[in-house]
Amino acid sequence: MDHIQHHACLLSLAVLSCLFMTIEGDACGYKACTDTKDGILNVHLVPHTHDDVGWLKTVDQYFYGANNSIYHASVQYILDSTILTLNQNPSRKFIYAEVAFFKRWWAEQSATMKAKVKNLVNQGRLEFAGGGWSQNDEAATHYVAIIDNMAYGLQFLHENFGTCGRPHIAWQIDVFGHSKEQAALFAKMGMDAAFFARIEDVDHDLRRVEKKLEGVWHGSQSLGSRGDLFFGIFYDHYSPPPGFCFDAFCDDPVIQDDPDLFDYNVDDRVSEFLEFAKKAANAFQTNHIMMTMGGDFEYENANEWFKNLDKLIKYVNQKEESTKVHALYSTPACYLYALNQANKTWTTKDDDFMPIGEPNSYWTGFYTSRPALKLYAREASKILQTCKQLGALSGVDVNSAFLKDAVSIVQHHDAITGTEKQHVADDYAKRLAMGIQQCQISLSDVISKLMLKTKTAPAPKLEFCNYLNISVCATTQSTDAFSVTAYNTLACEVRDYVRIPVNGTQFTVMGPGNKNIQYQVMEVTSETKRVRRDKGSTTHELIFPITIPSVGFSSYLVTAQTTKQRSKGDGSVPAIHKAENSNDVTIKNDNLMLLFDGGTGLLKSMTNIPDNLTLEVQQSFYWYNSSEGSNPYQFRPLGVKAIPLLNKNVNLTYIQGNIVEEVHQQFTPWLSQVIRLHKDQKHAEFEWTVGPVPDKSGLGMEIITRFETPLKSDKLFYTDANGRQMIQRRRNHRDTYPLPMINLVAANYFPVNSRIYIKDDEAQLTVLTDRSQGGSSLVDGALELMIHRRLLHNSGGGLNEALNETGQYGDGLIVRGKHYVILEKPGKSAKVHRPLGLQVFAKPTLLFSHLVPDWRSKYYTKYSYLNTSLPINGHLLTLEQWGQDKNNVLLRLEHPFEVNEDQTLSKAIKVSLKKLLASVFEISDVQEMTLDGNLPISQSTRLQWNTKTEGQFKEDLRYKTTSYGKQADVTLGPMDIQTFLLSVKPRKP
Amino acid sequence: MDHIQHHACLLSLAVLSCLFMTIEGDACGYKACTDTKDGILNVHLVPHTHDDVGWLKTVDQYFYGANNSIYHASVQYILDSTILTLNQNPSRKFIYAEVAFFKRWWAEQSATMKAKVKNLVNQGRLEFAGGGWSQNDEAATHYVAIIDNMAYGLQFLHENFGTCGRPHIAWQIDVFGHSKEQAALFAKMGMDAAFFARIEDVDHDLRRVEKKLEGVWHGSQSLGSRGDLFFGIFYDHYSPPPGFCFDAFCDDPVIQDDPDLFDYNVDDRVSEFLEFAKKAANAFQTNHIMMTMGGDFEYENANEWFKNLDKLIKYVNQKEESTKVHALYSTPACYLYALNQANKTWTTKDDDFMPIGEPNSYWTGFYTSRPALKLYAREASKILQTCKQLGALSGVDVNSAFLKDAVSIVQHHDAITGTEKQHVADDYAKRLAMGIQQCQISLSDVISKLMLKTKTAPAPKLEFCNYLNISVCATTQSTDAFSVTAYNTLACEVRDYVRIPVNGTQFTVMGPGNKNIQYQVMEVTSETKRVRRDKGSTTHELIFPITIPSVGFSSYLVTAQTTKQRSKGDGSVPAIHKAENSNDVTIKNDNLMLLFDGGTGLLKSMTNIPDNLTLEVQQSFYWYNSSEGSNPYQFRPLGVKAIPLLNKNVNLTYIQGNIVEEVHQQFTPWLSQVIRLHKDQKHAEFEWTVGPVPDKSGLGMEIITRFETPLKSDKLFYTDANGRQMIQRRRNHRDTYPLPMINLVAANYFPVNSRIYIKDDEAQLTVLTDRSQGGSSLVDGALELMIHRRLLHNSGGGLNEALNETGQYGDGLIVRGKHYVILEKPGKSAKVHRPLGLQVFAKPTLLFSHLVPDWRSKYYTKYSYLNTSLPINGHLLTLEQWGQDKNNVLLRLEHPFEVNEDQTLSKAIKVSLKKLLASVFEISDVQEMTLDGNLPISQSTRLQWNTKTEGQFKEDLRYKTTSYGKQADVTLGPMDIQTFLLSVKPRKP
Repeated sequence: MDHIQHHACLLSLAVLSCLFMTIEGDACGYKACTDTKDGILNVHLVPHTHDDVGWLKTVDQYFYGANNSIYHASVQYILDSTILTLNQNPSRKFIYAEVAFFKRWWAEQSATMKAKVKNLVNQGRLEFAGGGWSQNDEAATHYVAIIDNMAYGLQFLHENFGTCGRPHIAWQIDVFGHSKEQAALFAKMGMDAAFFARIEDVDHDLRRVEKKLEGVWHGSQSLGSRGDLFFGIFYDHYSPPPGFCFDAFCDDPVIQDDPDLFDYNVDDRVSEFLEFAKKAANAFQTNHIMMTMGGDFEYENANEWFKNLDKLIKYVNQKEESTKVHALYSTPACYLYALNQANKTWTTKDDDFMPIGEPNSYWTGFYTSRPALKLYAREASKILQTCKQLGALSGVDVNSAFLKDAVSIVQHHDAITGTEKQHVADDYAKRLAMGIQQCQISLSDVISKLMLKTKTAPAPKLEFCNYLNISVCATTQSTDAFSVTAYNTLACEVRDYVRIPVNGTQFTVMGPGNKNIQYQVMEVTSETKRVRRDKGSTTHELIFPITIPSVGFSSYLVTAQTTKQRSKGDGSVPAIHKAENSNDVTIKNDNLMLLFDGGTGLLKSMTNIPDNLTLEVQQSFYWYNSSEGSNPYQFRPLGVKAIPLLNKNVNLTYIQGNIVEEVHQQFTPWLSQVIRLHKDQKHAEFEWTVGPVPDKSGLGMEIITRFETPLKSDKLFYTDANGRQMIQRRRNHRDTYPLPMINLVAANYFPVNSRIYIKDDEAQLTVLTDRSQGGSSLVDGALELMIHRRLLHNSGGGLNEALNETGQYGDGLIVRGKHYVILEKPGKSAKVHRPLGLQVFAKPTLLFSHLVPDWRSKYYTKYSYLNTSLPINGHLLTLEQWGQDKNNVLLRLEHPFEVNEDQTLSKAIKVSLKKLLASVFEISDVQEMTLDGNLPISQSTRLQWNTKTEGQFKEDLRYKTTSYGKQADVTLGPMDIQTFLLSVKPRKP
Repeated sequence: MDHIQHHACLLSLAVLSCLFMTIEGDACGYKACTDTKDGILNVHLVPHTHDDVGWLKTVDQYFYGANNSIYHASVQYILDSTILTLNQNPSRKFIYAEVAFFKRWWAEQSATMKAKVKNLVNQGRLEFAGGGWSQNDEAATHYVAIIDNMAYGLQFLHENFGTCGRPHIAWQIDVFGHSKEQAALFAKMGMDAAFFARIEDVDHDLRRVEKKLEGVWHGSQSLGSRGDLFFGIFYDHYSPPPGFCFDAFCDDPVIQDDPDLFDYNVDDRVSEFLEFAKKAANAFQTNHIMMTMGGDFEYENANEWFKNLDKLIKYVNQKEESTKVHALYSTPACYLYALNQANKTWTTKDDDFMPIGEPNSYWTGFYTSRPALKLYAREASKILQTCKQLGALSGVDVNSAFLKDAVSIVQHHDAITGTEKQHVADDYAKRLAMGIQQCQISLSDVISKLMLKTKTAPAPKLEFCNYLNISVCATTQSTDAFSVTAYNTLACEVRDYVRIPVNGTQFTVMGPGNKNIQYQVMEVTSETKRVRRDKGSTTHELIFPITIPSVGFSSYLVTAQTTKQRSKGDGSVPAIHKAENSNDVTIKNDNLMLLFDGGTGLLKSMTNIPDNLTLEVQQSFYWYNSSEGSNPYQFRPLGVKAIPLLNKNVNLTYIQGNIVEEVHQQFTPWLSQVIRLHKDQKHAEFEWTVGPVPDKSGLGMEIITRFETPLKSDKLFYTDANGRQMIQRRRNHRDTYPLPMINLVAANYFPVNSRIYIKDDEAQLTVLTDRSQGGSSLVDGALELMIHRRLLHNSGGGLNEALNETGQYGDGLIVRGKHYVILEKPGKSAKVHRPLGLQVFAKPTLLFSHLVPDWRSKYYTKYSYLNTSLPINGHLLTLEQWGQDKNNVLLRLEHPFEVNEDQTLSKAIKVSLKKLLASVFEISDVQEMTLDGNLPISQSTRLQWNTKTEGQFKEDLRYKTTSYGKQADVTLGPMDIQTFLLSVKPRKP
């Protein structure tokens, strides 16, 4: 017996000692950093790969290494290979960034391999950097998708690797310019820094000289120090020093250190390395520099990199006594930590890094490139929010995995930017479509069940019409009795208008309260028919107002009137008028009046009726003539003048109805615009249709809409950052460095994700967009937005393809989109454009069904999950089941106003979470999380930095665990987003 | 105490069980073969890499992966990577061939890594194939170097891996044609088969149809079945099936097997594979086929190959029930074993596989390409033999490691072939030079010590003159009193002539017996001055006969005569005569008389005086006009006619002296010839000097020497294989397939390594060469040899460089060389050319020294290690210290005659090893080894094969351990080489 026990003891001791070794040896993050040397230069070598989640090839082609004739890249092998070779030498380190790829690889791994990888992560030998699903673009992205992209990436890392999997730093190394809002969002995620390579060349040159490549970025005036983020710009791109690429696909000289063989080159290689290191060190503040040892899709054969880096480190350090240079394997986090320990005082940065490029070569084309994909990405993100919200509220498994993957992938800096090859853009669209379809099936399922008054009744068959913008809907086309159910994700009642393709002119529209709803019927325009081609055959559009409760739905029952009924109909088809005798034309509603020049057919003025504020506004379309240098990235017009698209006068017609008044303008056979005023809206809707852009001559056309006013804008204009804070732009100017006075059209373009405005003391003209576009103000009082680009010349480069979207029919992509135009006094503008911005993004989801008898007795026609609303300056940004546990719900609340933007609405708000969600959940625990939702704020300790600008932004950077009281009352300041993980028990519906 | 013991017990049990597992798991060679399936097609997938030991890059550049802009290849990573990934899946297998690379890699590995590799080898997961130092060419190589190349490779494997490291098969996959002698040599090495890819296209097509890609090759008529070798020709090169290259540098579609990702392609890939497998299977006899899964420098990232092969095997075998196709990891040896087990009757092959190519594209240019390198390689091999012999005999460490490496590397099929880039050819030459220098330092050290009569005296300082062929020698140029020591490796007394650059005309030459030696002095010709340029300044050449004992040396002391002495001098400078009045010119010695036409200046007839045999022989030089398709590999003349180089008549002078008679012919300013008859030699020496070949117009010139006679050769001519057996060639004919009647010049060229002859019943004209050349007989009675090629056109292809050797001075390479011409009756020819062939290769090594006083009292002037000789039909091929133990000596004895070649000399000989070596060694043990010297014959059990041609070649293939008797008497039949490992004790000298 004694012996047997002894066996057992030995065995368990062995097992224990194994376990113990692993545990004791574990140290990740800053704790895992290799020691550096005092008083001499420390060169942090950071092995990394940059894996685009699609660009020249699709994401799955890149993953598997398919389609290698286009470009050789195979992420599966990169990960195989680095794991294998990290295990060969414990001092080696590697960082990985793109979770979309990592997740694909992880799914194919055995438990043994997963354990190996976890071990590496736990020891800080494999470290994640950035950690978003993709390395998102910052110029053409919307904050909702940015947050999702980061949240899903970090969630994956959290679920599989725990705390050690969580990156300390953002890693935006290839992104084409850097947004201030993104910096604030990263700060809110608990990131300690962001590293990147691409800023404007003049800026970069100056920062090198002034040793300002690193510093503290004030990411948000509203958030103060909570929006501060340390930033590090690389000395020279994210590649290794020239001559030191040891990738299998590089030709730089490897280190040949066997003296018995020919061409021994250790001394030469070390000298070259030291020379570069010393030169680079001159551009930095501390005795630490970082060298990014890697590049695009490198480390497919990691052994080649590591073997040579091992040798480089060995031979460099052999001489460190005399050279005073020490090399080490490191990570960006460890480099950052060394900077932090250096205890320097850092300079600060207030504006953003937009745009990038150099004179004659500004990367401002991609703000608009592929406008259809840009809209589709925005809409998909909205659908995803809807699915997540309904999933969390209903407790039903809403199938949004594919859409999450797709939406996040599409935020990639060669996806939504439009800078990918056509087949890759098609792949992105396909992914979005598949994700949307999957999600919509779930949505219709959840909502149809929600509508049921008795569980036993058959649920209505709800369908989606995804082509309403071109007047196509299978359901309404095939019946004259249908329901329209509109779901609203916003935590407030929403009023909107629907516009539905129908065959007929006389209808009965019954609202949820069983009340007749006023409607208007209009002929499908010839322009819409041109655009929809063979996709639909309806003759008319039915327009009526809808009202939807906070987080809920309303159903409207539409029945075509019989001839008998028709006499007492409320509907009518208003006549289409042609502008006659050059008389000016006016359309108006209670809030706005628009005046059109009877001669030119163009908008002439705009009046805010309640405020009695009139502004002369001329709006028209122009085009820039592309040069050979124009490409999906760069906007390089041949001249500085935009050329009018209009030869003579606009062909103008107008319609005055009881619901909506419209002006129809035909500029060219391929460019038209409808300007609308809905009955009680405070904005005018400018719906433009552009395409196919002619491709018969020249190098390409870049189409803009331009608003010209007498506003004394004094060189200033304002563009939003990622749909949130506004950035003041000054024409022909950068805040921190002299702008070379060359190519001042492209250099003055900035990203517009949701809005752009100009103003003077009296008035502000704000234009909201439905997607990201490039925009500018090239003369005082004017603003312009680029809405489409068609480039016929392949300017070569990495992409090696012209941005010539030929579209489904091969003749050129047609794009239809909307601008929402607001004229208000400056002080009252935010009050209008902030809520409108939320509504434009979160427009109601429409579901259609054939009418069945006794609809009202079977189905609810109105439902609100919340039975309460947030104030106008509070926004229910996210409601989402979190992780595998159905009782975990992630909630994000947003304050959509900036500090000082509105006298009242910029103030902090207080929300009681328990009250807000009282009708759906019983909340047992509330934990405030970092913005991504994966780390309790209480565990997020960010590094602190000394800056020269004391005071203003200074406050304790460490979040404190707050007690939220019995009702879980939370307070949100301007521009804040707060993220809570709720433990909930659903209440019986 | 009990507990402690118990601990120890547990520990040792654990250790034991580990050891036991390893031992039990070990099984290499045929024992390690994976099971195959009966009744269905087995596809043997053989992962392999083909690593040229220099071609586009130098061997060390290939090893390290330097110079990758020329061509990406890095052997270090190939080996890193395969070892790493073999360890990931025990079913994976890999073969490696080139030991020159493997040895470089091995030298850099840790003990741990070496143990891992040994484990893989012991389990048959890593298997060596071929195993030569390089994968030697078979057309331009000499058997001495072929044997060394294989012996050193196999020795390395034996020393590091024991029996499991020894390949079962020869692996000549990329070699440009296959020699019959090489087959016999492989058989003598105990190889079970040779696999290769390249044979003539017409042959290949026919063999596919007739299922004759595999069979038994009768490698030697003299050796019978001991020279038989199974051969396997690949279905289609040594690459994978089209579309199935999974290398990192291939673009074929990888297997995408995650159904959740886009582009799942498993079904497609499996179908394609099966289609190819079934097609290929039609060309073979058994239900096994081999697929070579690899290529040039592939597996640098072995994971990519193995990962996809793992999947391929998995998915192919999932369907094997229905498809009747089974895939498995295998090796060529395992494939061979499966063929052997199939117990088929195989067809046989009697001729060789020379040349390769197809109509209009014959690979017969490389037989001559880079003639200077070809000679240098031959000379280096000879120097190596000398070093090894002296090392073994003296017991001194002779430093030949570098030369062994160099000589073996240069046998590579892109080295001695001349098909490498110029910088690589330079690298080979540099390696040979470095090896020679190292070796020569040792040689002069050993011989100088051997010369010492008293140990205390200072040894003479012996120096080498490596440029004697252009009349350059530093020692003799700077003194008028010097010694010439000649060392002879042959086991017989050798008589030869030396020709030494001197400044003066009157000398005293004293031989070893202190006797005056007759000499002749001649002016350095203007042609030699042209060729040596600024390298030397001597005015005269001193010629005298030398006699050297068997395996020993003789010294000759040369002193310039004083004016006084001069009157009684034996020397003279014979006058140079110009041919006058078109009178014919004659030169002669006791054996030969040559008659030259006084008009044309060309050789007119040749007479064998003792046999009273006269043959009209006209000899002149011609050139073929290169086409655009000519390249280092291919000889593609523009027309079928060789163009005479001579415009009018040769400028002819002649010299008649007491030692040598010479005719000097100047054909063009850049082509000349000296024809010599030394006093008592049986051959005439034709020394041609060619170059710089004009490069001002055209695509290139390919220079030949042609002998035209009235011999009724009846389309037949004979060329040697690798310096040994003669192969009968028939013009415009192949033995086993119809030769397309296109480009019949190039198609009729064959490799000549040492000799070519034509004959009729009366006479045989034999020409021996000093190096490998291409040769042919394009009309009856004529034979020609290509001596130089200069190609001006880069015909692209893999090499992408013209064969335009510009040489050291930039104007074009000058080549000087010798043909040794014999006219004898056919039955008496072998008796002359066989010994001459040995002497041409093993010409005496000359060492020079300034004369010091009392030379004879200080130094021996004659010495023989053996004090005995072998008969004329016995050759001491090798004497070499073997392995690390100084008491192990490898001895090879060769019978240089073929069966039936000479009535007397073709008979078997009997040699007593103990007697032969009695004066140097006491032999304690004699073990007969395979030809390479690494495996006792007793352990070599070759596979047996049934063939259709019973009888003639049939005998027991298994060697038996023979008892050699007290004197270790051994018997050698014609063309045999026997290899013995001797345990010796050196006798005191």
